Amino acid sequence: MLLLSTLLNLSHRRPLLRPLSLRLHTTLSPPSPPPPLEVPLSHPIYTVWGANTGVGKTLVSTGIAACSLVSPSSSAKFVYIKPVQTGFPSDSDSRFVYRKLSEIFLRRKPPVSLLASNHALKASEASALEILGGGDFDERESGLRDVCWYEERRVCKDVARFSSKLVCKTLFGWREAISPHLAAEREGASVEDSVLLETLQKCLSLGTSGDMSIIETAGGVASPGPSGTLQCDLYRPFRLPAILVGDGRLGGISATISAYETLKLRGYDVVAIIFEDHGLVNEVPLLSYLKNSAPVLLLPPIPQDMSDDLLGWFDESFDTFSSLKEILLSSFSERLKKLHYMPRKAAEIFWWPFTQHKLVPEENITVIDSRCGENFAVHKVSNQELLRPIFDACASWWTQGPDVKLQIELARDIGYAAARFGHVMFPENVHEPVLECAEALLGGVGKGWASRAFFSDNGSTAIEIALKMAFRKFSADHGVVQNSLNTDYSIDLKVLALKGSYHGDTLGAMEAQAPSSYTGFLQQPWYTGRGTFLDPPTVFISNGIWTLSIPEGVHCGKEVSKTCTFSSRDEIFDLNQRSSDLAGLYSTFISEQLSANSVIQGSGGMLMVDPLFQRVLVNECRNRKIPVIFDEVFTGFWRLGVESAAELLSCLPDIACFAKLLTGGVIPLAATLATDAVFDAFSGDSKLKALLHGHSYTAHAMGCTAASKSINWFKDPQKNLNVAPEGKFLRELWDVELVHQISLHPSVERVVALGTLCAIELQVESCNAGYASLCASSLLQKLREDGVYMRPLGNVIYLMCGPCTSPLICRQLLIKVYRRLEEFHQESCIEG
Amino acid sequence: MLLLSTLLNLSHRRPLLRPLSLRLHTTLSPPSPPPPLEVPLSHPIYTVWGANTGVGKTLVSTGIAACSLVSPSSSAKFVYIKPVQTGFPSDSDSRFVYRKLSEIFLRRKPPVSLLASNHALKASEASALEILGGGDFDERESGLRDVCWYEERRVCKDVARFSSKLVCKTLFGWREAISPHLAAEREGASVEDSVLLETLQKCLSLGTSGDMSIIETAGGVASPGPSGTLQCDLYRPFRLPAILVGDGRLGGISATISAYETLKLRGYDVVAIIFEDHGLVNEVPLLSYLKNSAPVLLLPPIPQDMSDDLLGWFDESFDTFSSLKEILLSSFSERLKKLHYMPRKAAEIFWWPFTQHKLVPEENITVIDSRCGENFAVHKVSNQELLRPIFDACASWWTQGPDVKLQIELARDIGYAAARFGHVMFPENVHEPVLECAEALLGGVGKGWASRAFFSDNGSTAIEIALKMAFRKFSADHGVVQNSLNTDYSIDLKVLALKGSYHGDTLGAMEAQAPSSYTGFLQQPWYTGRGTFLDPPTVFISNGIWTLSIPEGVHCGKEVSKTCTFSSRDEIFDLNQRSSDLAGLYSTFISEQLSANSVIQGSGGMLMVDPLFQRVLVNECRNRKIPVIFDEVFTGFWRLGVESAAELLSCLPDIACFAKLLTGGVIPLAATLATDAVFDAFSGDSKLKALLHGHSYTAHAMGCTAASKSINWFKDPQKNLNVAPEGKFLRELWDVELVHQISLHPSVERVVALGTLCAIELQVESCNAGYASLCASSLLQKLREDGVYMRPLGNVIYLMCGPCTSPLICRQLLIKVYRRLEEFHQESCIEG
Repeated sequence: MLLLSTLLNLSHRRPLLRPLSLRLHTTLSPPSPPPPLEVPLSHPIYTVWGANTGVGKTLVSTGIAACSLVSPSSSAKFVYIKPVQTGFPSDSDSRFVYRKLSEIFLRRKPPVSLLASNHALKASEASALEILGGGDFDERESGLRDVCWYEERRVCKDVARFSSKLVCKTLFGWREAISPHLAAEREGASVEDSVLLETLQKCLSLGTSGDMSIIETAGGVASPGPSGTLQCDLYRPFRLPAILVGDGRLGGISATISAYETLKLRGYDVVAIIFEDHGLVNEVPLLSYLKNSAPVLLLPPIPQDMSDDLLGWFDESFDTFSSLKEILLSSFSERLKKLHYMPRKAAEIFWWPFTQHKLVPEENITVIDSRCGENFAVHKVSNQELLRPIFDACASWWTQGPDVKLQIELARDIGYAAARFGHVMFPENVHEPVLECAEALLGGVGKGWASRAFFSDNGSTAIEIALKMAFRKFSADHGVVQNSLNTDYSIDLKVLALKGSYHGDTLGAMEAQAPSSYTGFLQQPWYTGRGTFLDPPTVFISNGIWTLSIPEGVHCGKEVSKTCTFSSRDEIFDLNQRSSDLAGLYSTFISEQLSANSVIQGSGGMLMVDPLFQRVLVNECRNRKIPVIFDEVFTGFWRLGVESAAELLSCLPDIACFAKLLTGGVIPLAATLATDAVFDAFSGDSKLKALLHGHSYTAHAMGCTAASKSINWFKDPQKNLNVAPEGKFLRELWDVELVHQISLHPSVERVVALGTLCAIELQVESCNAGYASLCASSLLQKLREDGVYMRPLGNVIYLMCGPCTSPLICRQLLIKVYRRLEEFHQESCIEG
Repeated sequence: MLLLSTLLNLSHRRPLLRPLSLRLHTTLSPPSPPPPLEVPLSHPIYTVWGANTGVGKTLVSTGIAACSLVSPSSSAKFVYIKPVQTGFPSDSDSRFVYRKLSEIFLRRKPPVSLLASNHALKASEASALEILGGGDFDERESGLRDVCWYEERRVCKDVARFSSKLVCKTLFGWREAISPHLAAEREGASVEDSVLLETLQKCLSLGTSGDMSIIETAGGVASPGPSGTLQCDLYRPFRLPAILVGDGRLGGISATISAYETLKLRGYDVVAIIFEDHGLVNEVPLLSYLKNSAPVLLLPPIPQDMSDDLLGWFDESFDTFSSLKEILLSSFSERLKKLHYMPRKAAEIFWWPFTQHKLVPEENITVIDSRCGENFAVHKVSNQELLRPIFDACASWWTQGPDVKLQIELARDIGYAAARFGHVMFPENVHEPVLECAEALLGGVGKGWASRAFFSDNGSTAIEIALKMAFRKFSADHGVVQNSLNTDYSIDLKVLALKGSYHGDTLGAMEAQAPSSYTGFLQQPWYTGRGTFLDPPTVFISNGIWTLSIPEGVHCGKEVSKTCTFSSRDEIFDLNQRSSDLAGLYSTFISEQLSANSVIQGSGGMLMVDPLFQRVLVNECRNRKIPVIFDEVFTGFWRLGVESAAELLSCLPDIACFAKLLTGGVIPLAATLATDAVFDAFSGDSKLKALLHGHSYTAHAMGCTAASKSINWFKDPQKNLNVAPEGKFLRELWDVELVHQISLHPSVERVVALGTLCAIELQVESCNAGYASLCASSLLQKLREDGVYMRPLGNVIYLMCGPCTSPLICRQLLIKVYRRLEEFHQESCIEG
């Protein structure tokens, strides 16, 4: 059969064209990129969350502050931050912490020295007017005003040196004591999530080694922030460890567990739960639920008398808060220890795929603490220790798609599927997730041709299944097996595929690819290469021009120039307007190949194969009743800017394979779709005629749930801003002008930008391929410092984003690449 | 290399011994099995949950009842059930519904006729005394007393026929108005979850077509029930669709979303959210969060004046409750429609593995609505339409392990992993879940030999990887590749494996198994069978006796009897006490085979291979530097009663493959473990010498999270009651006496019971194999009626449970099988 990796060949090859050196164009001045939301690991930073509103979050913050500053092993500084305060200024949690701490310190015998400050940054006009009594303002930003309200207090002035410092900050205040999103709306003073996070990020660096910081949220865990984003989602990029203030009242067990689960469903670690004891022993069921995953602490009942200054209560609570503080300190040091232990242990016990372990020194191992949308949070130890967001430009090895919203929805829906189904076996059964998934597949990428969905676990198994389907179909169409069940029968069936293609690493998938260093005796002695492998024409941008390159074998002896050019990418895909001479040339070449070789066919790559060639190939096979398989494992689901790459070829397969982005890129699942005619070749009275291939987790509920959710999300213009309302194409993600300029760069050989992918082949003429890949490595090392995580494929580097990634982000990535290319080139020139 | 499916050969073969007919023994009288927790689908049944305590659940129940009974499209009957009531009898929600409905009906102009009743079943002594004033009680059950408090009211006595009926029930009451688990403890009146569920189950059948039922929970979604089990977990076996009464107060958005997520994390479907409007427009962020997955309804503010009879409020709320009622009715009919649509559509678009679709009529397709621990909930339409629990004795095709507790914990933890990581690529990286998983593997099944973990997606890929590792190791040890990277080099490397073995369906895994109808031209024309396949001796119970059967090839010409017997299974595994003659015989046979065939080796099955033979085989290979692979994909993680089946053989492999139960059986993940010596064969200065095999989702965070959780859960005696404190063996799950008797049954040829598996080979002498498998099918069809889901493997049937399944359940399964065997045999005798 024909096995076509639709459009892209996942390999890389020799350079073709000469470069021209050009200067960095002025359009490259970048839009000011948002500062990375780094989390310093110099000192413990925790977020205080509430199981409900009014459960005493501020009292807990105050208690931790008191213990941290007072006790012998005291922090040098304690930073308290209230990012969002409503009811402001009459209500101010930061002022409460500031005042109460001062009182507590004054009361200590002997008094302990303290330098305390309280600072409010911005407030709505209504709120600001109340603070400043109607004065003039210097600045107005989206209805929020700088208030610069600062107060400071020195406890024990006679002490020359202040051993302890308390820094309290309110970042944004609104007057009405209602939910922040309502207050922001009613007071005409909204703040964007990114602005709030950047302001907060600056405050995270207020502490250094030996200090402690606490961020206190507003209301409950899923209460909306000022923009309406739920706070558990809003603060997720930092993923700070959490202290959950539980609810000790009747009904409080439920509220506490639910809040805990909401935090877990956002990927937070809850390090302790603390709550006011109402005598209901709520801690017993909580501990039983938690099974040691977090300690539970009890606070004495909080006096309800408004005149009570709570100082007695804080005295009573001191031991509890001390325990909590110790938990926070030890959890922090455990976390650091783990971050340092992880790469060491990984080097010792992992066996990474495609990796020569000898070439990976421990310091090159990346510790990934978490992922948020398109970014990893990576542990860095260089100047200071921190967690740093870095754009996953490998799109986690070609699978990943979700933005942060979809990631969180998938987490919840996958959790639901696990709770509802665990796993249930598939043959002769049906359950909702698999039916929805099959319908989404057949109504989407299979629309118009496929009528059956076969599920497996990964691209490689999907291909093995496709091959078995195609063998049978071919045999049936060509009378090879005349409905006989004779198992001894044998003829040599071969695959027609494109050179440089890749379809997976199991033996069957390997047999369908041309020999390479991946298929040699050293890797798989059983590999024989059961195919005819064609060298296809490819297209790319070189020196700013879309160029077609036709291999020697295709044009030999014919009167067609070796290359031709196009004014745009669209011209290449406008297949009906393409040269009929060329189509004829392709057709002749393919016919010769097919008659010289007995049978059947397949292909793959980072090289973009001429779509015209692929279409001609498909037609020639169809004319000979050769089943056509499209390998859309990599290209499917918007990777190339369309849901199915088949759309770009304007022709349909008999069988197609999908995996990777199928589930949004978060969980393994693969599907092989087939036409009715293929399915019918397996129909009969005997089970032995059925397709006897399967895997235990076939059509597992979690995978199918993630798949139908993602398939629908990616094509919904409401959810994916990159999709036009008619929903056929992604908008252009890679700035055309920037791509053009990169292609003009002297270090660049060729560029292919399509859909979510931008592949750049580096020059290797002046040096050998080994050196080239070392060059690529050093270039990519620099780019990691810029917050872009890329991996080389020999001398090809690539950027890969998700179907929902903003073109602005893509543009920033291209600029970073261009700048490093400049640097790289200059260094090469100096070295050269 | 030697590829050993440790201990079990996953195929089935010819019968060996004559049967003896014996009568059903008296010990077979079963322990009274709990009635199945069926859910009737005759009419809508909903559960009302609260986002918090005191949010008006009972008012909502009352409102739905009123609308259902009053409106023109009225229900014939409305059933209201309060399973758990504290503060009883002073607080009684069922009495409130009963009284309020009567008042509402009386007030209607013209009055509508109603027959209403309120009934309380059982209460704690403290509560009962208050009701009955200290009288005598007939019965006492674990501190709970029958109260049989019944009241009835007829509205509009002049109407002869009551068009509407209201049935209110309180199932269990406690006096103190505190959390049920506390009240139950303090009043010495607990009720087991199973008793509560059975009582509730009976009430579900109080309604019939045209009626509606509401179950009202107590407190919040995760408030503990009387036994301490959280209510969201307690009621999970019914998985009734939910109405969530949200919280309209400040902080209520968070409470409502968190409660919603807690329900989703238990696999519930929330069909509507309704809450009291406090003027905070909480519905806006809720709707934005829900994205149309559930409608949100608003109730007018509830009068706080205690003297208010609320009738005005109910009038005001009537339209809202009408809308809610319509949502409930249409959601119910949608659900039914979907349940009927699913098998039809499945037959049309699915392509099931290993399935001849022509042989699966639509009515044989099982619609699985959900799974709860070991049971599927299956849609049945026979006499009445219902959802029925059925024991998954295929353990979802050999993967499944979790009990219901682990299932729910896995759902939460997998959700957490998805939210924290989505997916992150593995090579050169490390993240917490994969490190924990690798450590759990190397410290568990790999302990004492393995030092590296390689991850892939399923058993088949794990085997392909193992083969590549073994090829390289063999080549290195035997000087086949003298550190050369020459890719053209080739010699014929073969696998030594056992006949009848099965290792997966990708080509490489297939090549390592002996020819069968699964490997013929019809299935995979590329298969050649690259191995030497030995026919191994097997052990089984036949006619009550553990028997060893030695194939012709092994003993030919030698003076050893063809069979020998053992007094117990333990005797078979006591390898050091086994006959040295036999070991010598095995050794000679294997030596001959190894010298006759050039190289290397593999095996698999439902046939239990003599462990002595396997040990001798391993030793003989080791002596010849032939790498040994253990295929533990099926046998690993307690499937055979030990964490690693290698423990039963008392010898260690060089490479071992794990999948299926690795993740607890819920999500695809596989691991290939290897020794340092194997790993070293891939070490070098060139990337080309590395193992160039990988899959995109390698070491994905969700799979690794599920794996380390499950590995630790299964071996923890606190969590898995089947594990002894020292933690080496599962206790015997299959009643030895019952297994013995089944082996004596005339229809039974052989039995193998080990760990979580009990395989029974049926007699096929009197009929051909085709008929035998039809026999098995009809037997299994009957067993499905008994609530046991099994699948035949030709004439072998098997029961498979999880590592945590109670031996009591296994005993019930065996009894059901025995009874159906009796019936089956009698029918065969009559037919014969």
